[in-house]
Amino acid sequence: MARVDPALAAARTAVRADLADLPAGATVLVACSGGADSLALAAVVATEARRVGRSVRSRGHAVRAGAVVVDHGLVDGSAEVADRAGEQCRDLGLDPVVVRRVRVEGSPAGLEAAARAARYAALDTAADELGADVVLLGHTLDDQAEQVLLGLARGSGARSLAGIPPRRGRYRRPFLGLRRSATEAVCAAVGVTPWHDPTNAPDGGPLRSRVRGHLLPVLTDVLGPGAVEALGRSAAQLRDDADLLDALAADLLARSRVVGDTSLPRDVVLDPDVLAAAPPALRRRALRAAALVVGCPAGTTTAAHVDALDALVVRWRGQGPVHLPGDARALRACGRLILRSSRTPAHPRPTP
Amino acid sequence: MARVDPALAAARTAVRADLADLPAGATVLVACSGGADSLALAAVVATEARRVGRSVRSRGHAVRAGAVVVDHGLVDGSAEVADRAGEQCRDLGLDPVVVRRVRVEGSPAGLEAAARAARYAALDTAADELGADVVLLGHTLDDQAEQVLLGLARGSGARSLAGIPPRRGRYRRPFLGLRRSATEAVCAAVGVTPWHDPTNAPDGGPLRSRVRGHLLPVLTDVLGPGAVEALGRSAAQLRDDADLLDALAADLLARSRVVGDTSLPRDVVLDPDVLAAAPPALRRRALRAAALVVGCPAGTTTAAHVDALDALVVRWRGQGPVHLPGDARALRACGRLILRSSRTPAHPRPTP
Repeated sequence: MARVDPALAAARTAVRADLADLPAGATVLVACSGGADSLALAAVVATEARRVGRSVRSRGHAVRAGAVVVDHGLVDGSAEVADRAGEQCRDLGLDPVVVRRVRVEGSPAGLEAAARAARYAALDTAADELGADVVLLGHTLDDQAEQVLLGLARGSGARSLAGIPPRRGRYRRPFLGLRRSATEAVCAAVGVTPWHDPTNAPDGGPLRSRVRGHLLPVLTDVLGPGAVEALGRSAAQLRDDADLLDALAADLLARSRVVGDTSLPRDVVLDPDVLAAAPPALRRRALRAAALVVGCPAGTTTAAHVDALDALVVRWRGQGPVHLPGDARALRACGRLILRSSRTPAHPRPTP
Repeated sequence: MARVDPALAAARTAVRADLADLPAGATVLVACSGGADSLALAAVVATEARRVGRSVRSRGHAVRAGAVVVDHGLVDGSAEVADRAGEQCRDLGLDPVVVRRVRVEGSPAGLEAAARAARYAALDTAADELGADVVLLGHTLDDQAEQVLLGLARGSGARSLAGIPPRRGRYRRPFLGLRRSATEAVCAAVGVTPWHDPTNAPDGGPLRSRVRGHLLPVLTDVLGPGAVEALGRSAAQLRDDADLLDALAADLLARSRVVGDTSLPRDVVLDPDVLAAAPPALRRRALRAAALVVGCPAGTTTAAHVDALDALVVRWRGQGPVHLPGDARALRACGRLILRSSRTPAHPRPTP
C-alpha cells in the first residue's frame, strides 16, 4: 500500500472527525475559492464523504458532498478563476457544484466587509436551495493565529482573542487545526493545482495582509515555530471561557433587572447592589450586554464605556450621566442604574 | 505655576492611586535597579509619599518611603551600579535606603530564574527587616505587553495571557499602565540620570530580549501604536476572567471529589458524572488542579495532559491509564476517575 502523505492523512482525519455526527444522507457543501485551503478541503471531502456514517449505509456516498464557488467580481478575471474552481470541484467528484456571481458594493474602506457579507449571503442562499445541512469553510490554523493577533490589537478581551469559531450555525471549519502549508501539501498529494492570487491580497484587507506577511513570520521567528499552534490553543481555551462567562453574565443581568419599576418602558433598570456584589468579569460583561439592549452598537461600545458604566456601580459619588454610543445614556437615580435608549421619549405619552 | 511634564503628571497620578488605600504611617519600599523604570518610580514615590493619606496626617510624610537596591553580582561593575542607585534614592529623599548583595547560582539556562528568586528573597528579607507594608516594583506597560506575548507562545490560556499582576501579596506595580518611554521622560523631568545597561539585556533572558527588541516593534508597526495598550487591556480583562474561573473550578473540584471512598489515602477520587456535566472551561481547570494536588509540577503539566484527563471524563471508551508529569497517573475504575501520586505505595501499609 502506498504511503499516504502525512498532511493528507491529517486532513482526512480532521474532515472525518468534523463530519462524524452527520446522519447518512446529509448534504455538505464546500465553499471553494480555488485557493489551496478550500481546494484541499474540496478534495478531501470528495473522498471522505463516502466513509462518513459508512456503518449506516454501506455503499455509495454516505454523505452527499457538493461545492459552492462565489465570484465576487472585484478583480479582472475573477469569473475565469471561479469557473476553473467549479470545474476542479466537479473533477474531484463533488456534486452538485454551483458557481454564484455576487455584486459587491461599498466604499474602499468597507469593501472587505461588503465582500464578506455578499459571500455569506450567497453561501446561505445556495445552502438553502440545495438543502445543505452543513457548509464547510477552508480556514486554517494560520487564519486563526492571524485572527487572534487582530483581536489582540483591539484589546477587547477573551471573546475577541477567541478568534474564529470552529462551528457556527451550519458553518464548520474542519481545517482550523491544520497549518496553511499542510493544505498546499494536500493539493500536491492529490494532484490539484490551486489558484494563487497574484496580488497576494488575503481575504480580509490590508491589515490582515500585514499581519500575515510581516507580523506572523516575526512572531514565529522570535517565539519559535510552535507559536502558531499556541495561538490556536489559546483561542480554543478562551472560546470556552468566553462562552461560560457570557452565559453567567446573562444570568447576572437577568437577576439585577428591576421589574415592575415606574420608569420608562424601554429603559433597562438595574439594581446596582446586585451588580456590585458580582465578580468584575461578570459585572463588566452584564453592563456591556445591558448597553447593547438599549441600542448601543457592539462595534463602538468600548472598554472605556464599560469602565464608565462600572464606575456608576462601584464608584458612585454623585457623578453625572454616562453618554454611550448610539445616543444612549446611563445614570444613577433613586438607587437604580438606568440605561436609556435615545429612542425613548423624554416623557412617555399617556396610554390612550 | 510651572507646567508639569505630562509623563510626570501621569506617573504621580498612578502612584497616588496605587497608595491611596495605605494607612498613614505605613512603610513602602521601592525596589530600585537604577534603570529608568524603577528610578522614575523612586523619584515619584519620594514626592508623593507625603500626599498619600494627607487628610489623616497634615505634615511630613504621611507614608514612610524607602528603597531597596539588589546587586545580583552577575556582571562586572554591578556593585558600583547598585551603590549609585542607592545614592540616587537617598538624594531623592527616600529613607531608609539599603543595598543588598545576593549570590546567584544556576546553570546558564536557569540563571534568569535563579536571579529572580534571589532578588525576591532579598526584597522579602529587606521588607521584613524594615517593617515594610508594601514593596513597589517599576514594571511598565511595555513589560506587560512582553509578558502577554510570552504567554501567547505558551498557549496555556487566560492565566498566562493575564501577564503580570498589578498586585500580589505585598508587591505592587503602580506603573503597569505607563509606557516605558514615559519613565524615561519622568527621569528627565525630575533631573535624575538612569543607568542604561550597555548589554541591553532585559531582565528575563534572551527570549524576552528578542520579544522586546524584535517582536514588539513589528507588532506596533503592523497593528498600530495602540497595540501595547491593547495588550495591557486584554491582560487586565483576562486576569479578572481567570480569577473567577479558577474560583469556580475549585468549587467544581470540591463538588466532584468522592469522600469516604475505600481508595488509597493520597488519591484524588472524582465523580466523572459531576465533571462531565460542567462546562469545559471549568472541567479542564478542575482536572488541572486535581493533577497539581497529586504532585504534577505546574510547569510541565500541559494542555495535552489536560486533554487526556478530559478524555477519561467525556470520551471514556475503556482507554488505559494516563501518565502525568511527576510520575503521577490517572485512571477510570469502578465508575470513578482516580488521580494517583507516584508517592502513593501500590499497596497501602495497614495502619499499626
